[in-house]
Amino acid sequence: MPHSVSVFGSAGFTGALTARLLLGHPSLELSALTARSDVGRRLDDLYPHHRVPIELEELDLDRHAEVDAAVVAYPHGAAAPLVAELRARDVRVVDLSADFRLHDPEVYGHWYREHQAPELLDEAIYGLPERYRDQIRGAGLVANPGCYPTASLLALGPLARAGLIGDVIIDAKSGVSGAGRAATDKTHFVTADENVNAYGVPSHRHIPEIEQELAMLGADVRVTFVPHLVPLDQGELVSCYVTPSEDVGDLRTLEALYAEAYAGEPFVELTPKPPGVRDVRETNICRISVHLDERAGRVIVFAAIDNLWKGAASQAVQNLNLMLGLPEEEGIGVTVAGEREALR
Amino acid sequence: MPHSVSVFGSAGFTGALTARLLLGHPSLELSALTARSDVGRRLDDLYPHHRVPIELEELDLDRHAEVDAAVVAYPHGAAAPLVAELRARDVRVVDLSADFRLHDPEVYGHWYREHQAPELLDEAIYGLPERYRDQIRGAGLVANPGCYPTASLLALGPLARAGLIGDVIIDAKSGVSGAGRAATDKTHFVTADENVNAYGVPSHRHIPEIEQELAMLGADVRVTFVPHLVPLDQGELVSCYVTPSEDVGDLRTLEALYAEAYAGEPFVELTPKPPGVRDVRETNICRISVHLDERAGRVIVFAAIDNLWKGAASQAVQNLNLMLGLPEEEGIGVTVAGEREALR
Amino acid sequence: MPHSVSVFGSAGFTGALTARLLLGHPSLELSALTARSDVGRRLDDLYPHHRVPIELEELDLDRHAEVDAAVVAYPHGAAAPLVAELRARDVRVVDLSADFRLHDPEVYGHWYREHQAPELLDEAIYGLPERYRDQIRGAGLVANPGCYPTASLLALGPLARAGLIGDVIIDAKSGVSGAGRAATDKTHFVTADENVNAYGVPSHRHIPEIEQELAMLGADVRVTFVPHLVPLDQGELVSCYVTPSEDVGDLRTLEALYAEAYAGEPFVELTPKPPGVRDVRETNICRISVHLDERAGRVIVFAAIDNLWKGAASQAVQNLNLMLGLPEEEGIGVTVAGEREALR
Amino acid sequence: MPHSVSVFGSAGFTGALTARLLLGHPSLELSALTARSDVGRRLDDLYPHHRVPIELEELDLDRHAEVDAAVVAYPHGAAAPLVAELRARDVRVVDLSADFRLHDPEVYGHWYREHQAPELLDEAIYGLPERYRDQIRGAGLVANPGCYPTASLLALGPLARAGLIGDVIIDAKSGVSGAGRAATDKTHFVTADENVNAYGVPSHRHIPEIEQELAMLGADVRVTFVPHLVPLDQGELVSCYVTPSEDVGDLRTLEALYAEAYAGEPFVELTPKPPGVRDVRETNICRISVHLDERAGRVIVFAAIDNLWKGAASQAVQNLNLMLGLPEEEGIGVTVAGEREALR
Repeated sequence: MPHSVSVFGSAGFTGALTARLLLGHPSLELSALTARSDVGRRLDDLYPHHRVPIELEELDLDRHAEVDAAVVAYPHGAAAPLVAELRARDVRVVDLSADFRLHDPEVYGHWYREHQAPELLDEAIYGLPERYRDQIRGAGLVANPGCYPTASLLALGPLARAGLIGDVIIDAKSGVSGAGRAATDKTHFVTADENVNAYGVPSHRHIPEIEQELAMLGADVRVTFVPHLVPLDQGELVSCYVTPSEDVGDLRTLEALYAEAYAGEPFVELTPKPPGVRDVRETNICRISVHLDERAGRVIVFAAIDNLWKGAASQAVQNLNLMLGLPEEEGIGVTVAGEREALR
Repeated sequence: MPHSVSVFGSAGFTGALTARLLLGHPSLELSALTARSDVGRRLDDLYPHHRVPIELEELDLDRHAEVDAAVVAYPHGAAAPLVAELRARDVRVVDLSADFRLHDPEVYGHWYREHQAPELLDEAIYGLPERYRDQIRGAGLVANPGCYPTASLLALGPLARAGLIGDVIIDAKSGVSGAGRAATDKTHFVTADENVNAYGVPSHRHIPEIEQELAMLGADVRVTFVPHLVPLDQGELVSCYVTPSEDVGDLRTLEALYAEAYAGEPFVELTPKPPGVRDVRETNICRISVHLDERAGRVIVFAAIDNLWKGAASQAVQNLNLMLGLPEEEGIGVTVAGEREALR
Repeated sequence: MPHSVSVFGSAGFTGALTARLLLGHPSLELSALTARSDVGRRLDDLYPHHRVPIELEELDLDRHAEVDAAVVAYPHGAAAPLVAELRARDVRVVDLSADFRLHDPEVYGHWYREHQAPELLDEAIYGLPERYRDQIRGAGLVANPGCYPTASLLALGPLARAGLIGDVIIDAKSGVSGAGRAATDKTHFVTADENVNAYGVPSHRHIPEIEQELAMLGADVRVTFVPHLVPLDQGELVSCYVTPSEDVGDLRTLEALYAEAYAGEPFVELTPKPPGVRDVRETNICRISVHLDERAGRVIVFAAIDNLWKGAASQAVQNLNLMLGLPEEEGIGVTVAGEREALR
Repeated sequence: MPHSVSVFGSAGFTGALTARLLLGHPSLELSALTARSDVGRRLDDLYPHHRVPIELEELDLDRHAEVDAAVVAYPHGAAAPLVAELRARDVRVVDLSADFRLHDPEVYGHWYREHQAPELLDEAIYGLPERYRDQIRGAGLVANPGCYPTASLLALGPLARAGLIGDVIIDAKSGVSGAGRAATDKTHFVTADENVNAYGVPSHRHIPEIEQELAMLGADVRVTFVPHLVPLDQGELVSCYVTPSEDVGDLRTLEALYAEAYAGEPFVELTPKPPGVRDVRETNICRISVHLDERAGRVIVFAAIDNLWKGAASQAVQNLNLMLGLPEEEGIGVTVAGEREALR
């Protein structure tokens, strides 16, 4: 019998895509979609290409929380109270906001606002399956990582675990969907087209999340992180510049380190050439290449993801799969099912 | 047991996408990929996002024709001789070129060159399933329609069949992938970006194909057809302006005509609003809207497809499914499987 | 001594560009910029690339109308009352709205709303210099044409004047700046990118303007006009399909007709190949090609303009130049001054 | 009397734009355009938007070198012999290639090939006017900087001169025109669109040029430099991450350092917000912002240029102006003449 799932906050880009993935999922049943704007409209009216013929409803916990699991796609700060209510009703939750990503409520308070449900922080698992797969299995609350942390941590994880990161600069490039559905000067076509610029300088909110997780792997560094908006719809590349803390050997050694770290990972691809975001568009895949700048003594790592997929919605489904004891790739690898098997 | 299929000419955009779709197809087995350029390279090196880890081989009919079916993605003119050889070996063929689309070898000769295998024209079925589904079932040779004719005929079919087309102008807009993989001044990013222009004026080669099929439906008209290149990668919109031959009634009557014509069609969607090419990106779907310009006495029909999918590769698989007795949607509806069922 | 000019409504795309052009104009002096939103901000903060270091002020006619001329860039309907006040103070006005383009207030009322200053309609000159140059010279009120009518009328003028238009369909493609500065779902990058679709079907407001001016030239037709949004920032192409009312001769005859019609025109270019919008980007130039579809018996004319320049702001300056007795090309041909001379 | 100038190698993007700028230049006279491909075609056929109605000729030094000055837009390696011939005829030369940028022929030999005219290296001035204005005045041979070095050195110059650069990472993003006119897989629209990726990792040829010039300012560092291709036509952003060698004070101190360094510079703009490449499109302007990442102890500097303008052609004209004793801004600031004066 399929597990029932509601999506709370389905009118935004990530909630809507989550709904689409759930609708096509063989072992999950999309129960309800709620929204705060656009209530009463059908999702396939807002997003024709997702083809989800379901109406957006106003939140009614008595009806919408009668499910096995929920995905919450609320803004930071607004998510925590809803998550608390869902957990009180024993619904498993994947939360797409930042509210449960940081273990320390004071750090959260510094970068966001006072935490609304600090009592849940202990049970929240950071939802990067390549890192916390075992803890996610059976978890009740998973904090889905931010898109930038997802790519950055997959890029830097092997180096961090090996104790090789002296310091690190992350220069990220993201498509405009990363700025969300809100129509603003920033997301206006005429602003973003034929343009590139940095934003959130020098203190983007994804920094504490990256630092926390690097520290968990033993790399206690202050990260310089600068995201840039580039004129494409979805896709994200992080270019990571690592000054190693000790000799890293040659390129072959580095490549072996990555190959070992990601052996058997269904959604990580290693390539010798720098990956393009186009290579991973509309997939749950993170594509990584590692390079050695011998002249300057630096390791350079690139990681490309689709910010709406592995950076949000499909990773949420990957986490749901693990939480519910389903095959990890179910419902997200469909388009490339044949290929992925062939690749292994 | 799955049917084995080879793709001949896999280095181009449509052949490569066909290979990807076949690799993920549950009832077909991708046997071999041949190419004329790039022999020896793996397809996932040329097209990482297709994830087809198979090497391109030089044509060797003794090995590559040992299959149940073949897709030929050769240039116009070059396809016919290969198709003839494959048919001589009793291989079922979907041909993506124009070589078997026109019934009259003289018309073909006028628009292309002298036909290389006119003896096969009689058995060739024009591969528009929404029109010739029954003939395609079990056929030995199917001529996959051009991308512009696919969209144009789906847009105009109901009007033509109802005897309502007095004359018609088709203004088409296509993404740059329609110009093929060849790197030229025309496909250079700096030429196509921030640009729109018409090409093939006034006599694009897709005209006879459109006229032939409209005539089969009873509309004996000279079509004005003008394609335009627009700055996007894949997607195609045709805007059809029909001066009706008689009174068409009101908009409701027209909409009913289309609803009836496409009732039950798995890959045609009717919408009240003009469709966007984004709505059908990476799908086999044709999305159509019909409008009435009462002031000027014209019917306006829009149809959007993905030129590489419904306009080529996924329609080829749709045809293969029919030819081999498989479910028509197998292997092409996967990404939206759940949704499509829900829509019905 | 330079003429002083104020721009009313400078926060939008066309008002801001007008301000930039005036600031660089050798014989005009930019006096003041008013706005309804963003008052208090400097224009170079809103539009860095225009480099207009002037603050937007709230409307104060006593100060801002103390000028020789004004450009009004208000929304349709809102412009008329302001224009009336400016004319009462004897300020020469170029109005970018539709308010004074239609001679018949009833037609205006049908497509827009009740006219707010019908008494001024008699003195308003339709500001297409290639058509009404003599009347614009010294005029007090010029109604700057819409972007689509500008391109359409320049494309069709010679045929209309020659009595050759039986009927006409205009399929237009415009960049997103044509939708204005307002941040909406429609202008969001993620909506417009990789997309093409029609809008305003079947009754776009530019139709009466086109029909009025074609009728003035003797072509009394009902125009089918359909604009499409394409993923680029600025630029517009109209593809005009004319069924001639009588024999038009061969292509050479048509080309001669156009060559004669536009001989000596500083801002019209004729080309044998279909023009691209990129060819006219950031210029006041309209680039036109005429073609003959002998099979279907139709004349096809393409015209490309920059919708913000010749379609609005630079044409406004062209009109100002004529109204004030300045050289017609002053302040708009600067970037290509040398070339244009060389071309003649 | 105007100075006569020939452009050698006008068929490429930078040579063609140089020709356009020279044609519009009030004190220079475009004498001849040579090319290696496309001989016999007119430049306005290849590049309609440049409107240069001049035919490309095969190189004939006896005719084409009878000029006061020349711009050479040949590939690296091919330029040096031509430059030598021109200098032998006493023609002043701005060379757009890398051939005379590196003072040390061994370094050149390491990154490119054996130098073909090392005897000229001593007289060659590195053509960054903001750095070497006095030496460029009256120079006979100016090596126009690469686009990446132009932006990088303008971004880093003030820090280098102040002795503050401990080490530096430069992450650059460039539009596709930076890859040149050659139609390749890389410049194909379908490759570049909706994509971002790094190239030239880890050893792009612009590195020695950047290091040489930083060293001249006292910063003896090994630079990590990684360029990325982004989906836009022209424009370039460098994001520079500097670990300072000593305490740099607060942000205000840094901003004062930059304000002083660039006081009076006609083509450098300082902004508090990160610049967008759109802000400088089709201008000779470099727009710079400096930031302090106090958490990580780094200085971040962004610089945006148009790679074809300040990164090549308009900087070449700027250099020509200086070499010939003309006003530095002549012929390149025309479009924003008024604004620029207003800004000062």
